[in-house]
Amino acid sequence: MKGLYFVTDRGLCGAKPLADCVLQAIRGGAVCVQLREKDVSTRFFVEEARRIKALMAPFGVPLIINDRLDVALAVGADGVHVGQNDMPYEIARKLMGPKAIIGLSVETWEDVERAQGLDCDYLGVSPVFATPTKTDTKEPWGLEGLARIRAFSRHPLVGIGGLDAGNAEAVVTAGADGVAVVSAICAAADPYTASRELADIITSALAKRGGR
Amino acid sequence: MKGLYFVTDRGLCGAKPLADCVLQAIRGGAVCVQLREKDVSTRFFVEEARRIKALMAPFGVPLIINDRLDVALAVGADGVHVGQNDMPYEIARKLMGPKAIIGLSVETWEDVERAQGLDCDYLGVSPVFATPTKTDTKEPWGLEGLARIRAFSRHPLVGIGGLDAGNAEAVVTAGADGVAVVSAICAAADPYTASRELADIITSALAKRGGR
Repeated sequence: MKGLYFVTDRGLCGAKPLADCVLQAIRGGAVCVQLREKDVSTRFFVEEARRIKALMAPFGVPLIINDRLDVALAVGADGVHVGQNDMPYEIARKLMGPKAIIGLSVETWEDVERAQGLDCDYLGVSPVFATPTKTDTKEPWGLEGLARIRAFSRHPLVGIGGLDAGNAEAVVTAGADGVAVVSAICAAADPYTASRELADIITSALAKRGGR
Repeated sequence: MKGLYFVTDRGLCGAKPLADCVLQAIRGGAVCVQLREKDVSTRFFVEEARRIKALMAPFGVPLIINDRLDVALAVGADGVHVGQNDMPYEIARKLMGPKAIIGLSVETWEDVERAQGLDCDYLGVSPVFATPTKTDTKEPWGLEGLARIRAFSRHPLVGIGGLDAGNAEAVVTAGADGVAVVSAICAAADPYTASRELADIITSALAKRGGR
């Protein structure tokens, strides 16, 4: 999980259809899309996920479903992202199978230590900075917290929370392999250009940092 | 699915723990328990379902999860109940397997006709009467609508919506095999006695109606 990671937020897309944002994000260089929905019916989520999956199929970019394994299983998504209040990781792995991509959010140092024993595909370091997009989060990790997790963890790290073109390089330098953004793409006037700019920053920061 | 069917509502239980209501409902004669949760985290729902399943294990009464297949699969529940805005029935059957109990709510005549081609285990006729418990429902079927579905459908019918000791007999006479109640047990001062009374009414009404 290395590069620009797009997490959707239908509300933040405003007048732009979510499907367009996803397409522009991928064309702009996103290497992963996480579909996140709260407060919609299961039927709505399944139908939307099915449409987004079909749309993404030609690009070979994985579709990750936030929290809802039922939706992920229903549409054959590539994986799920689970937080500490979502499905317990071990059950998620059991239900999704060994090939699924499963990301796990870490919000406390205890979460980080517990994750060390799990075969998850990446850790979502959440939130790196304070963010208005998600209000139920813990204290931000900051760049120092991210670097501390990088020094400890055996997993790829995806930073999320308050990330944009202005701080993406610093986040990679501090140890993030992936940079997850929500509003920096969803709320951009031109999601393609925004994604392209972000992807370029992240790619050159990763190159500067060297392979890991 | 013949007899008293208890659908939980944590809010309506008031000061009584939900687990107690479930236990008293079963002791009073409920033949099925449907765990319904809205607005809770997946983690909460999974942990609650696991506790309720362990509690119910000695009684041989099936645990049905409302809507959330991820929760049902996580805890190994006996089945799921899906409404028209939940997981599409065919996908639910595929994911849950042939042995699972799957109930499907029908709210319009079109739903009833479509259900005729499905191998669901029962139809939830919803709502039989107007109910304050669930506000997103369509026009009530009434006893006439229930009888009309009974004459047409090949499936067992479970009536739900505004059902209590005062109308349970009429609902069975009109064609319901199961009588689902929420507040008549959850909000009762004594859920055991309320369940017992309901179960007795339903059992004798089923006996009066004769085998079907």
